[in-house]
Amino acid sequence: MGKKTEKVKDEKGITAEKEDDFTDWFTQLMIKAELADYTDVSGCIVFRPASYAIWEKIKEECDIRFKKLGVKNAYFPLFIPEHVLVKEQEHIEGFSPEVAWVTHAGDTKLSERLAVRPTSETIMYESYSKWIRSWRDLPLKLNQWNNVVRWEFKHPVPFLRTREFLWNEGHTVYATKKEAESEKDQIIGIYKEVCEEFLALPSLIGKKSDKEKFAGAEYTISMEFYMPNGKCIQGPDFHHDGQNFAKAYNIKFLNKVGKEEYAYQNTWAITTRMLGVTFAIHSDKKGLILPPRIAVNKVVIVPIFFGDSKEKVLKKAKEVGNSLSELGAIVDEREEYSAGYKFNDWELKGIPLRIEIGPKDLEKDSVVLVRRDNGEKESVKIKDVKKKVEGLLEDIQTSLFKRADKLLRENILRVSSASELKKAIAGKKIAFAPLCRKRGCEDMIKFESVGGKVLNIPEEQPKELGKSKCVICGDKAEYFGYVGKSY
Amino acid sequence: MGKKTEKVKDEKGITAEKEDDFTDWFTQLMIKAELADYTDVSGCIVFRPASYAIWEKIKEECDIRFKKLGVKNAYFPLFIPEHVLVKEQEHIEGFSPEVAWVTHAGDTKLSERLAVRPTSETIMYESYSKWIRSWRDLPLKLNQWNNVVRWEFKHPVPFLRTREFLWNEGHTVYATKKEAESEKDQIIGIYKEVCEEFLALPSLIGKKSDKEKFAGAEYTISMEFYMPNGKCIQGPDFHHDGQNFAKAYNIKFLNKVGKEEYAYQNTWAITTRMLGVTFAIHSDKKGLILPPRIAVNKVVIVPIFFGDSKEKVLKKAKEVGNSLSELGAIVDEREEYSAGYKFNDWELKGIPLRIEIGPKDLEKDSVVLVRRDNGEKESVKIKDVKKKVEGLLEDIQTSLFKRADKLLRENILRVSSASELKKAIAGKKIAFAPLCRKRGCEDMIKFESVGGKVLNIPEEQPKELGKSKCVICGDKAEYFGYVGKSY
Repeated sequence: MGKKTEKVKDEKGITAEKEDDFTDWFTQLMIKAELADYTDVSGCIVFRPASYAIWEKIKEECDIRFKKLGVKNAYFPLFIPEHVLVKEQEHIEGFSPEVAWVTHAGDTKLSERLAVRPTSETIMYESYSKWIRSWRDLPLKLNQWNNVVRWEFKHPVPFLRTREFLWNEGHTVYATKKEAESEKDQIIGIYKEVCEEFLALPSLIGKKSDKEKFAGAEYTISMEFYMPNGKCIQGPDFHHDGQNFAKAYNIKFLNKVGKEEYAYQNTWAITTRMLGVTFAIHSDKKGLILPPRIAVNKVVIVPIFFGDSKEKVLKKAKEVGNSLSELGAIVDEREEYSAGYKFNDWELKGIPLRIEIGPKDLEKDSVVLVRRDNGEKESVKIKDVKKKVEGLLEDIQTSLFKRADKLLRENILRVSSASELKKAIAGKKIAFAPLCRKRGCEDMIKFESVGGKVLNIPEEQPKELGKSKCVICGDKAEYFGYVGKSY
Repeated sequence: MGKKTEKVKDEKGITAEKEDDFTDWFTQLMIKAELADYTDVSGCIVFRPASYAIWEKIKEECDIRFKKLGVKNAYFPLFIPEHVLVKEQEHIEGFSPEVAWVTHAGDTKLSERLAVRPTSETIMYESYSKWIRSWRDLPLKLNQWNNVVRWEFKHPVPFLRTREFLWNEGHTVYATKKEAESEKDQIIGIYKEVCEEFLALPSLIGKKSDKEKFAGAEYTISMEFYMPNGKCIQGPDFHHDGQNFAKAYNIKFLNKVGKEEYAYQNTWAITTRMLGVTFAIHSDKKGLILPPRIAVNKVVIVPIFFGDSKEKVLKKAKEVGNSLSELGAIVDEREEYSAGYKFNDWELKGIPLRIEIGPKDLEKDSVVLVRRDNGEKESVKIKDVKKKVEGLLEDIQTSLFKRADKLLRENILRVSSASELKKAIAGKKIAFAPLCRKRGCEDMIKFESVGGKVLNIPEEQPKELGKSKCVICGDKAEYFGYVGKSY
């Protein structure tokens, strides 16, 4: 991420087509809609107010729901001493290539290197091991909203892959495997609700293959999203760790009959990546499109000035603005810009609904409403504005979800052979393919599909599974999985 | 911060006296009330749910007020490349001894060292310099709630001095000095309101001396708090930077007549240090005392079981609990602990009000209310409980502030000579002393008072200033300043 900012700032509107050059389009959208900016730190962005406010909304909606489950927020150190990080073998193997290391403080060399947390299992579980003594201390359900660093060497993309990102990390501990696993539907349910009801994003939910699961987990449940360029991207996830970390970090408790047992653990997360997914899926060449429920300012009112009617028009615009103050309505009274400039500006920035008020509208006691999502215009009597606006915002919210859902469903193809799989992936589709559990076959998918991988495996399986054959080896299929290219 | 946890966990209650051994008392309070814990990272603590929830409250109350001023939240990178950090001379001299440096990612040595932000002026102002072009872009008012690291080599104390801490950092930019400076009363007003109305903490507000101001600021306004051990501690502050950073980071704008000018800047912050100040000032040997407005659970109901009345008592306890659910009332129905154990436990953890319900209370249709702050008991008819509880919580809130205010005021001594100054500081007081502006005199204070320093200089000065003499050199005094020992 270098000096692109200057270049794309020269022109006001987005000059690339979403369909033809997604990367250029997405980059221009990020900069021109003032969602993000590049920095001098390679792979790290500024989350500007327009995007950060949406992250605050995601946090708020998730946090309320976590707290209803009895989860409490806490904060653990940013740094993890090397000897603590390396205790769980699979975990450290997964993360060590990406760890940023602090070696000096001022001019002093530290006696032990400190990792900047890539995730906090290791530092949190050191404390858990001290705090948990008896069944009375369980369940322990903690969460933190923080920043993590993974110094990946893949090409960074604003929001979608940044070396520092923001997230929640929930870390819960239970006395029994059954209790721990029952948290899965609660947490995935919360993430699904927030993604669908607020971000207007449908997803494919399922279990990761052993190859793709979280480093240290027994299994991982993921939500996968289909991006407009045909690539998939992993969103929120839930990991059941079994007793894996409990054994590495010595998290034991005395059960009700006085016997010592290892505890069962889960971890789960949603990240700022979801901002990028939301922006990418809904927006268009004019700029950002935001689901109304996450937009801070849901309405903009643009008064149209002609000759001596200016004062009257502005007065009415403010009246309408006041009546919609709960929706964060903005009245754009800037004098230095034309109405046309303002229309483009607010379309670029993604305000869901525009209200135009000119002298002719005033004569008819009406205003013109313009939807950001589909550009539809409608003249409405001023007395009906509030009700109409509320209805339209709901309708935009629903329409965006339906459109994204249609995009996802239309791009899933059931396949039954390696050649069909290859063709589907080459055509930017998600293949739904019968597979066996052999690691060799899963490895072959990347080759056969030219870069695809198993995204996840839905819990509900097609009834044809019994008579289906693995598309790679031809042996009896053991599951149907979603296969696609992925970020 | 080492292995103290184990030691103090052995006994349930606090064994040290606040008055005799403040450090031991404070450490025990942190661990036993489950507010913080030590970690394997030297100088860094876990903010456990009991303290983190109060930080969330502080954030929420400040954030609402910041947003009303038009401040927007954003997020800038954790890392600052070395060449960016060093641009402002005074600033880097102030911070470089405490910077934690990232030198490696995985096995790769980075081409340039990255500082873990000790504060974000330098990385933010690189962006500001790109974003600000014209008077139309001003004022720019951004804030972030994040973590910062200052690897100080002074003795760390939980909350009060930790190497990583959480804070807000507001960074605003204005076209004129007058506008910039007018923000001072707004921001200090917000911090004062949150400290007084929520944390029940009075403070001394004034300007830092040039010697003590923020590295890179034109001047600093600070809030100073008087701790029970006679030391003062700096809380929230506001820095007016003039054009200092604007010149170092090239933040210029075209004014309305088309002329290029440097902008004026402020920065301001409140940190997790305030948690420690709150806990230290209000609490006692029994444990934590929390102002009701920041307590998540303001009331605990302890049913007292005798023989066969248990079911009836528990039923009534739950009824009372439900009627107080808005106050986060807890009903402690644990069977494995006695009522006496529960009283101690909730006193240790700082629930502001306890309600006891036993069989005898039931007969009289009443309950017993016990205040955490002063232990006063009162029998109240069940029908009057809600109103009474609300009144008592307000009274506790007010009483705590009055008590802390009395402590502060009683410990300020007006002095007029070096020997009086020395005596005041030796007696753990704050001296209010007439001083000149010579740096040599300010340096001498540390010597004369055996470790004291100028805390700050109140805006409103005593009318005796004109005829007062500097307590160090005897020349004409130029201000009265608060002098004390300080964290």
